[in-house]
Amino acid sequence: MKRTLGVCYYPEHWPEDQWATDAAQMVATGLSWVRIGEFAWARMEPSPGTFTWDWLDRAISVLGEAGLKIILGTPTATPPRWMVDKYPDMLAVDAQGQPRKFGSRRHYDFSHLGYREECRRIAGLMGERYGSNPHIAAWQIDNEYDCHDTTLSYSDAARKGFQDWLAQKYQSTDALNRAWGNVFWSMDYDTFDQIDLPNLTVTEPNHPHQLAFRRYSSDQVVAFNKVQVDELRKHTDAPLIHNYMGRITGFDHWKVAADLDIASWDSYPIGFLSDRLEGTPEFKRAFLRQGHPDNQAFHHDLYRAVGKGRMWVMEQQPGPVNWAPYNPAPLLGMARLWAWEAFAHGAETVCYFRWRQAPFAQEQMHAGLLRPDSAPAPALAEARQVADEIETLASVGTAKAQAALVFDYESAWGWDAQPQGADFEMFRLAFAAYRALRRAGLNIDILPPDTADLSAYKLVMAPGIMSLSAPLRAALARFEGIALIGPRSDTKTDELSIPTPLGPHLPGVDMRVALTESMPPDDGIPLEGGGQFLHWFEHLEGSAETFVATAAGQPAIMGGKNLRYLAGWPDDRTFDQFVAGLCDALGLETKQLPEGLRLRDTETHRFYFNYAAVPLTWEGVTIPPAGVHWEDLR
Amino acid sequence: MKRTLGVCYYPEHWPEDQWATDAAQMVATGLSWVRIGEFAWARMEPSPGTFTWDWLDRAISVLGEAGLKIILGTPTATPPRWMVDKYPDMLAVDAQGQPRKFGSRRHYDFSHLGYREECRRIAGLMGERYGSNPHIAAWQIDNEYDCHDTTLSYSDAARKGFQDWLAQKYQSTDALNRAWGNVFWSMDYDTFDQIDLPNLTVTEPNHPHQLAFRRYSSDQVVAFNKVQVDELRKHTDAPLIHNYMGRITGFDHWKVAADLDIASWDSYPIGFLSDRLEGTPEFKRAFLRQGHPDNQAFHHDLYRAVGKGRMWVMEQQPGPVNWAPYNPAPLLGMARLWAWEAFAHGAETVCYFRWRQAPFAQEQMHAGLLRPDSAPAPALAEARQVADEIETLASVGTAKAQAALVFDYESAWGWDAQPQGADFEMFRLAFAAYRALRRAGLNIDILPPDTADLSAYKLVMAPGIMSLSAPLRAALARFEGIALIGPRSDTKTDELSIPTPLGPHLPGVDMRVALTESMPPDDGIPLEGGGQFLHWFEHLEGSAETFVATAAGQPAIMGGKNLRYLAGWPDDRTFDQFVAGLCDALGLETKQLPEGLRLRDTETHRFYFNYAAVPLTWEGVTIPPAGVHWEDLR
Amino acid sequence: MKRTLGVCYYPEHWPEDQWATDAAQMVATGLSWVRIGEFAWARMEPSPGTFTWDWLDRAISVLGEAGLKIILGTPTATPPRWMVDKYPDMLAVDAQGQPRKFGSRRHYDFSHLGYREECRRIAGLMGERYGSNPHIAAWQIDNEYDCHDTTLSYSDAARKGFQDWLAQKYQSTDALNRAWGNVFWSMDYDTFDQIDLPNLTVTEPNHPHQLAFRRYSSDQVVAFNKVQVDELRKHTDAPLIHNYMGRITGFDHWKVAADLDIASWDSYPIGFLSDRLEGTPEFKRAFLRQGHPDNQAFHHDLYRAVGKGRMWVMEQQPGPVNWAPYNPAPLLGMARLWAWEAFAHGAETVCYFRWRQAPFAQEQMHAGLLRPDSAPAPALAEARQVADEIETLASVGTAKAQAALVFDYESAWGWDAQPQGADFEMFRLAFAAYRALRRAGLNIDILPPDTADLSAYKLVMAPGIMSLSAPLRAALARFEGIALIGPRSDTKTDELSIPTPLGPHLPGVDMRVALTESMPPDDGIPLEGGGQFLHWFEHLEGSAETFVATAAGQPAIMGGKNLRYLAGWPDDRTFDQFVAGLCDALGLETKQLPEGLRLRDTETHRFYFNYAAVPLTWEGVTIPPAGVHWEDLR
Ligand SMILES: [Zn+2]
Ligand SMILES: [Zn+2]
Ligand SMILES: [Zn+2]
Repeated sequence: MKRTLGVCYYPEHWPEDQWATDAAQMVATGLSWVRIGEFAWARMEPSPGTFTWDWLDRAISVLGEAGLKIILGTPTATPPRWMVDKYPDMLAVDAQGQPRKFGSRRHYDFSHLGYREECRRIAGLMGERYGSNPHIAAWQIDNEYDCHDTTLSYSDAARKGFQDWLAQKYQSTDALNRAWGNVFWSMDYDTFDQIDLPNLTVTEPNHPHQLAFRRYSSDQVVAFNKVQVDELRKHTDAPLIHNYMGRITGFDHWKVAADLDIASWDSYPIGFLSDRLEGTPEFKRAFLRQGHPDNQAFHHDLYRAVGKGRMWVMEQQPGPVNWAPYNPAPLLGMARLWAWEAFAHGAETVCYFRWRQAPFAQEQMHAGLLRPDSAPAPALAEARQVADEIETLASVGTAKAQAALVFDYESAWGWDAQPQGADFEMFRLAFAAYRALRRAGLNIDILPPDTADLSAYKLVMAPGIMSLSAPLRAALARFEGIALIGPRSDTKTDELSIPTPLGPHLPGVDMRVALTESMPPDDGIPLEGGGQFLHWFEHLEGSAETFVATAAGQPAIMGGKNLRYLAGWPDDRTFDQFVAGLCDALGLETKQLPEGLRLRDTETHRFYFNYAAVPLTWEGVTIPPAGVHWEDLR
Repeated sequence: MKRTLGVCYYPEHWPEDQWATDAAQMVATGLSWVRIGEFAWARMEPSPGTFTWDWLDRAISVLGEAGLKIILGTPTATPPRWMVDKYPDMLAVDAQGQPRKFGSRRHYDFSHLGYREECRRIAGLMGERYGSNPHIAAWQIDNEYDCHDTTLSYSDAARKGFQDWLAQKYQSTDALNRAWGNVFWSMDYDTFDQIDLPNLTVTEPNHPHQLAFRRYSSDQVVAFNKVQVDELRKHTDAPLIHNYMGRITGFDHWKVAADLDIASWDSYPIGFLSDRLEGTPEFKRAFLRQGHPDNQAFHHDLYRAVGKGRMWVMEQQPGPVNWAPYNPAPLLGMARLWAWEAFAHGAETVCYFRWRQAPFAQEQMHAGLLRPDSAPAPALAEARQVADEIETLASVGTAKAQAALVFDYESAWGWDAQPQGADFEMFRLAFAAYRALRRAGLNIDILPPDTADLSAYKLVMAPGIMSLSAPLRAALARFEGIALIGPRSDTKTDELSIPTPLGPHLPGVDMRVALTESMPPDDGIPLEGGGQFLHWFEHLEGSAETFVATAAGQPAIMGGKNLRYLAGWPDDRTFDQFVAGLCDALGLETKQLPEGLRLRDTETHRFYFNYAAVPLTWEGVTIPPAGVHWEDLR
Repeated sequence: MKRTLGVCYYPEHWPEDQWATDAAQMVATGLSWVRIGEFAWARMEPSPGTFTWDWLDRAISVLGEAGLKIILGTPTATPPRWMVDKYPDMLAVDAQGQPRKFGSRRHYDFSHLGYREECRRIAGLMGERYGSNPHIAAWQIDNEYDCHDTTLSYSDAARKGFQDWLAQKYQSTDALNRAWGNVFWSMDYDTFDQIDLPNLTVTEPNHPHQLAFRRYSSDQVVAFNKVQVDELRKHTDAPLIHNYMGRITGFDHWKVAADLDIASWDSYPIGFLSDRLEGTPEFKRAFLRQGHPDNQAFHHDLYRAVGKGRMWVMEQQPGPVNWAPYNPAPLLGMARLWAWEAFAHGAETVCYFRWRQAPFAQEQMHAGLLRPDSAPAPALAEARQVADEIETLASVGTAKAQAALVFDYESAWGWDAQPQGADFEMFRLAFAAYRALRRAGLNIDILPPDTADLSAYKLVMAPGIMSLSAPLRAALARFEGIALIGPRSDTKTDELSIPTPLGPHLPGVDMRVALTESMPPDDGIPLEGGGQFLHWFEHLEGSAETFVATAAGQPAIMGGKNLRYLAGWPDDRTFDQFVAGLCDALGLETKQLPEGLRLRDTETHRFYFNYAAVPLTWEGVTIPPAGVHWEDLR
């Protein structure tokens, strides 16, 4: 497939006489796509029922006629001020009980059915008007669900919705009391309307209570998205997309995506390194202007799976952003590297955010491809270069992965409710496993927790999966490669209780977790022959084979030929050794890539990405800082 | 007295057909006691006035018939959900003004008279039903007062109660205004109902206002406890107990305990080291799996005094807990060491918490003596060993202490209101003094602030006592050993003002604090001949003798033959030198125990406890890690 | 002008028979002034409309007859309790929506017109009664505006006032929407009463929305102050003063001061070093008992400008205070040094705070000139020494400054709304520039942002000025010395948007900021020839000359002969080099003062201040720790 570039554009921000010039320059830059509309509700419907589509009609026409394909966004992430007059209770409520007020964006409660209906209405109207417009080649629904922690709301609407959801799920409070173990502290309920949201309790609320609220809240995101999908489907055949954010585990992406055609995500490598990724100060300094060398790849692979094979980058950082604690400029070349890395991981399209830096409002310090004075920003030339390179490079298909990683949002919620160690977090654990696979030079697929077929893979990792699903357990029973399950996997029921017999229940493997420990970051469990576990260690027992032992002789990896359990959280070097050992056993080639160099195979090419700020040499090739290099594999 | 072991058990968590097996195994383990009932209100009275005592009758019968003595808890720490429907205003309110909701435990306001009446009712009913049951050998009232910061509530009930309490105490607002110095910032009140709770003020509320609210709040805990005591006393002669927590200074334990027969406490050495004790990272790493080597002893000695000589450990950590930031497993042997240490400090009984790890709800990751699958957890064998050792060891009486430490809760509240230095806290200061005495190998008694007789001791320390009580001042005047008062002692009135003449007013000693300084942790006051004060330094003046001077020549210890004042907060090594010097003057033998080794004399035996993770040798005896060693003193 | 000393005194705190003794001792100490009254509303008007002036009449008489000049304070910072009964909505509301309750001080909302009217009333009554009293030689209005963050309130009164203020300013919501760029996220308003206060929004509120609220709030402080000024002017010719605090940027001091005669401030060098100034741990340790060697000078120079040439220190720290995290005692001599430094910077009067340490209420641990038992505290003798020295020293006039620094409160608010880097703050940047000038031994004037004439200065610095005012731009166009503008200067419109053409717009200089970066504290931008920028770096372009370049060859200082732009935030050593280079070019002599030594020239004398804890030698003179040395320049 030939890859394409695009850009995000806000015609409502600029004088109408500038649109055509902008469009022409986009085309001249080699861009194919332009995303518009997603924050413009107040300009589409300035007062309830009064519509001003004309400017949008003209913007679509000008952009489309210039040769651009348009992604049209539903504007539901920014309800106009009059909406809050109409539904004062549509605002989400924070965990302290305060309404989260109008004045920025995402000021709505996913549980509020009145607002949900308004979203159905505006999506329907847009579908009607533009669903068959030839310039509209894709739709984006809402914008960055859960950004600014907006999945959870502690409102009356959420409480009532949660109670109904619980009644539906459990049918009786007796069943719920049993499922949650409410006998524990006399927490039994007599009626569903006694069940409050799990905030502001004296000490921590019951973990299954928390988990249920997370499930309920995720379901509201799914439902909110689906009403718009249903409306748009009536009017259009264009693909429906949502643009997810980075390191967001607040709702189940697998379920939202089930109703959509393409998964896109918003990639801000430098902002993410600064505000949401772990790393030593030295590490963060080394990659300050490049971003984490594995984070983009992880999300590309994740969202490729979420999108059932179809993945875009809907927003690509082009320069300094405004929202991270510190906002340095990217190293020259990174705006190109990030795009090529996305393509190598299967992205169909990469859209830079945004065309021209806005001179006003919250994001005025967020760079674009143009400066506010319309002069080119540094990334414009890099976008142009990528556009040229796309032309010269044969179409890049997505390659088969040798390794797979199972990723489960529900487990993330379970561990949020019950971390047991202060630094235990699902994303962090899964990302540690991913990074080890990637440092070994492997292509990786990310899999949903109900995956029923693993036969395409040689090596599968499933860290932190609360409870293996029936299809996955069956697939594991048939698996002929090596699956490394754990740590903290299959040790809970679906209700976040401890099963008897104790887990994990790996088919054909006699083994269980006898005792669990969490440790402060500086207190590791040393392993026989070097390496260590950090954060987490499970004492395993059973008759299964010990493949790796701790220095004290306890099992560190235990299991059978195909299914093995990892008893702790390895540090990076130890994870590398484990991956190398497993690949060796499987006959998979691994690499010891230098710090900052990463590679990815496509169907036809091997791509190298140098995230380091210095040139790196690998197999005789020297790649400059921020450099991309590819070799034809045919 | 022969010591005994017990365990906490929740029959309501398990199928009834398991009770007899459990009871038999408890007995086989050598346990004598079983504590039940304290969280089961919802199962005793599932709806208002409807009682289901039958399961509890049977549980008591099964356990009792197996040979176990039962401690029955009143379930008032976990009011059922219907109680909150009946009294929606019974929930405590946090300092930000938010109700602390149902969904965990301790969700009640000590000031709420309606709920207090309900507690009287349930205690009375339980007393009636079980007060003369031969299996019920002790009662526990409520559970861990002040756990989760539950003494203070900023509710309407508390405000009204506080106003009445103030009216009772001061009789007129004029008197209150004078006592509090309200003239200072025009803070005078005209009526008692103008007086609000001291939260959410623009800057800090008046210190005596804060102190009065702390006193009022503590009195409510006393009153809450007493209504249950009064009910139970009508029906039973069994001892009444409360299980206090570690490092809790939120209410006056001396006053609550005045109405009870035995003081027990809940000992979680590893959790406490992690979540509530100061220590360098190196120190915390060295004792990660053992707990602070002095913290258990401090609380044993404190609660032995609070219990007027009768002390239990009602909950003893048996393995990893769930509630600390990190939850490692104890070093093998610690479950035995902790029990023996408790006995050596006078504990009559040590109950492990809990029998079987619960597979559900908030504490499912908290270990028990059994695993959730009923297999033995590591501590079971250690409990068995202790039970055996009890049999072989002659009864262990509580030995006379040479040294005493005065501990005052009201002073803790005074310094909370007026720390003057960010790291000044009563517990921390008193614990520093205690640790110095204990590192010297001394037996220590802890004394209440109104102690009237010190003649049993040679060395008395009284750090941080806001204002010496009349009986204690009189006892000091007669004292023939050495009492080291200070720092920050007897420098305030009972209303937390500065008296004129300036304090301290030590009988027969001409001395006063002329000026007070607090310092950041790294800025010490060096002393002549080495050592330093940290955190706090008082400039003393007067004609009394200077025993120790600072490097600048100011008094560091000043006073007379028997009564001396300590002008600052010594660091650990300096404290050791001071204690050694005083003991030398008194002819008391001291020791220089290696890091981690501690000892305690009983009437008949000297016990050694090795808290270190390595073997330690002392006077020719090598004690393994987590080892206990005893020698007959006769 | 001959300088004078004074003291703050609270007759209402002490028995009336002590007043005359106190007054006599003040006079004997050499004090000329006594400040009274500012917290005594409850004692002037104990219930609404009932007045008890008699005690105040007598206090004024006793103090005045003793020979003291009186500064009489309006008591509006501490409204009595009955006022809150009268106006329950007069309390300010914090950003979380909670009223900030009675019980300390400053418990009022600047937007509350009812309370404002009460303040007019009490000021009028005091003016009537004491306006022509010969002992009242000055008036203080309120006390420490904005102390305890009291400028901003999120109350209904503030919201309504803000809406009216916006309507007045913008006339239409269309104009406001355009000015704020509300199109950005559909944030447009239809009516002014839809506009809420910018707190509790989902993510950050629009920056111009925040800036407008800061401007509105500052205007309320101005208005609040002015109603009292207007009343007092009717009755008195004595100068009207406010006592500002240190490092307060919450309201526009230039505007408040426009209505007053003298600017005074409250100088707590040790408290400020501890609680509000940046510094490495080593730096803070070195100056623990002396305070920051530049902070007092900065505020003296700032408030001299705010006071249009007339500046006092209304409260001078005399010993340990009570409110900082740690409260050590000053080095002996500092109470003298601070007074002389104030005089050298133009202070007419320095009043110590307070006469006698209060034994009660919130500030009981705050030292005075006397101890609570009336014995002299260490500072009393130092005050006496300063009084003697004033007599021997010829009158000290304020000298001409060679250098000037522009300081703008509105820019501070702009950057608070849009820091872009986590450690970017206006005061910090301006203070960094000031410190560099002062380390070079220069006399410095601080200038308001609408300064229209710079001809008195050779070197002008203007860091962080959001948008140059028209008069300042015109003055710069005529300037014949060197003005160093930047970083982050003149790059915004008055509404905090980015102008096109891009700024800065320095007259006659072709240059603009092409791209802006913020960096974490450890990631600097190295400069050619050494030195570095920290925190902030702007990429400059244009045809102007590059005077200093970065190591990568980008402009670091760029501009023309007279007007130059500083592209980043230099570290201290780099700032020193820049100042030295500019002074060299201007023929201004600079010094390389040792750490801790500072100097200041007056009309007649050069003063040296040794802030170090060790003796320092400079040009052959050795100055002891905390020493002051002066040389006659004539
Ligand atoms: Zn975005
Ligand atoms: Zn407990
Ligand atoms: Zn003050």
